[in-house]
Amino acid sequence: MKQGKFIVVEGLEGAGKSTAISKIMSQLAASGIQDIVSTREPGGTPLAEKMRALVKEEHESEQLQDITELLLIYGARVQLVETVIKPALSQGHWVVGDRHDLSSQAYQGGGRQISADTMQSLKQISLGEFKPDLTLYMDIEPSLGLERARGRGELDRIEKMDISFFERARARYLELAASDDTIIVINAGQDIEQVASDIESALQQWLGK
Amino acid sequence: MKQGKFIVVEGLEGAGKSTAISKIMSQLAASGIQDIVSTREPGGTPLAEKMRALVKEEHESEQLQDITELLLIYGARVQLVETVIKPALSQGHWVVGDRHDLSSQAYQGGGRQISADTMQSLKQISLGEFKPDLTLYMDIEPSLGLERARGRGELDRIEKMDISFFERARARYLELAASDDTIIVINAGQDIEQVASDIESALQQWLGK
Repeated sequence: MKQGKFIVVEGLEGAGKSTAISKIMSQLAASGIQDIVSTREPGGTPLAEKMRALVKEEHESEQLQDITELLLIYGARVQLVETVIKPALSQGHWVVGDRHDLSSQAYQGGGRQISADTMQSLKQISLGEFKPDLTLYMDIEPSLGLERARGRGELDRIEKMDISFFERARARYLELAASDDTIIVINAGQDIEQVASDIESALQQWLGK
Repeated sequence: MKQGKFIVVEGLEGAGKSTAISKIMSQLAASGIQDIVSTREPGGTPLAEKMRALVKEEHESEQLQDITELLLIYGARVQLVETVIKPALSQGHWVVGDRHDLSSQAYQGGGRQISADTMQSLKQISLGEFKPDLTLYMDIEPSLGLERARGRGELDRIEKMDISFFERARARYLELAASDDTIIVINAGQDIEQVASDIESALQQWLGK
């Protein structure tokens, strides 16, 4: 039944995801793929955006629990997958996502050190066997990525975490990429032309398959 | 460490939970128990109330998925348990709850027929071994309960479900009560004086243990 493809761009803050997404959208269009839907997570539907806001904002008088954060992120993901991504794919559209499940594995599983059992259970409950066809993981040193992100303005609740949080997240990204051949690692620490060229080659090779 | 006790009142719409809670609060106070905290679910903290609103309100353009509803309810429960209930109990306060986990088992597990595996996993992820010391389940025929609830005014998204939804929820309540001796079933279909008397006896007997 599924006809479109789901491509996801992943990476730490400041890794250049937005630029990568623009590049991919252009390249897909140039390859004759029409009707591309773009999504971002957490969020992407009216309800999911409300859940995103609860995750992103500062809570003055109440500590957002790590498990609650995870439940909200998965709630937002279920809404996006069931009401936007799956319907688009089944109509033959391609979907390009700014983050998807791998972000939770990296940030909540790696960064916040939530147990593998919990991560696996929630993924199964929320997504079952659904997963992207291709993920481009933009790999960058956390210190370099955060320096770039800070240059863009104020940081949100998650972006203000300690550097060790992002180091654990990056380690988890790399670990998961190593064991899943639908995830391609792009060295996002290179100069911008080289990064663009690497993305183009990776996508072209995958499209050719 | 835990010193206070956590008592929960459960039941379908119109079962008389609010009256039962008032009765229990008075009886506890009359028994010399001070500093009783009352809670309601889903909700009971600023963040949990925001999640409650997402569950309760009608969503014009987007179908709230059953799994998302469940994730939001558990998110709200984690916030309430970790930031209100556990701190109160550890300070020696008693807590009287208007609904807790058994409602999810009945409404989402029974009513919405979400799988036992999913229900069990989410409970474990969110609550671990935490559970009420005593639950009074106010048992009522769904048709009678809904008639009473309708008499109170407009019904919310969940209260508008079909009668078979509530019949499945009631069956699950009774099934779980039968296998857990911390859950006492009160026949809430009796006249109001008899219900009050049954609650008083049940609580008195439990307090005497």
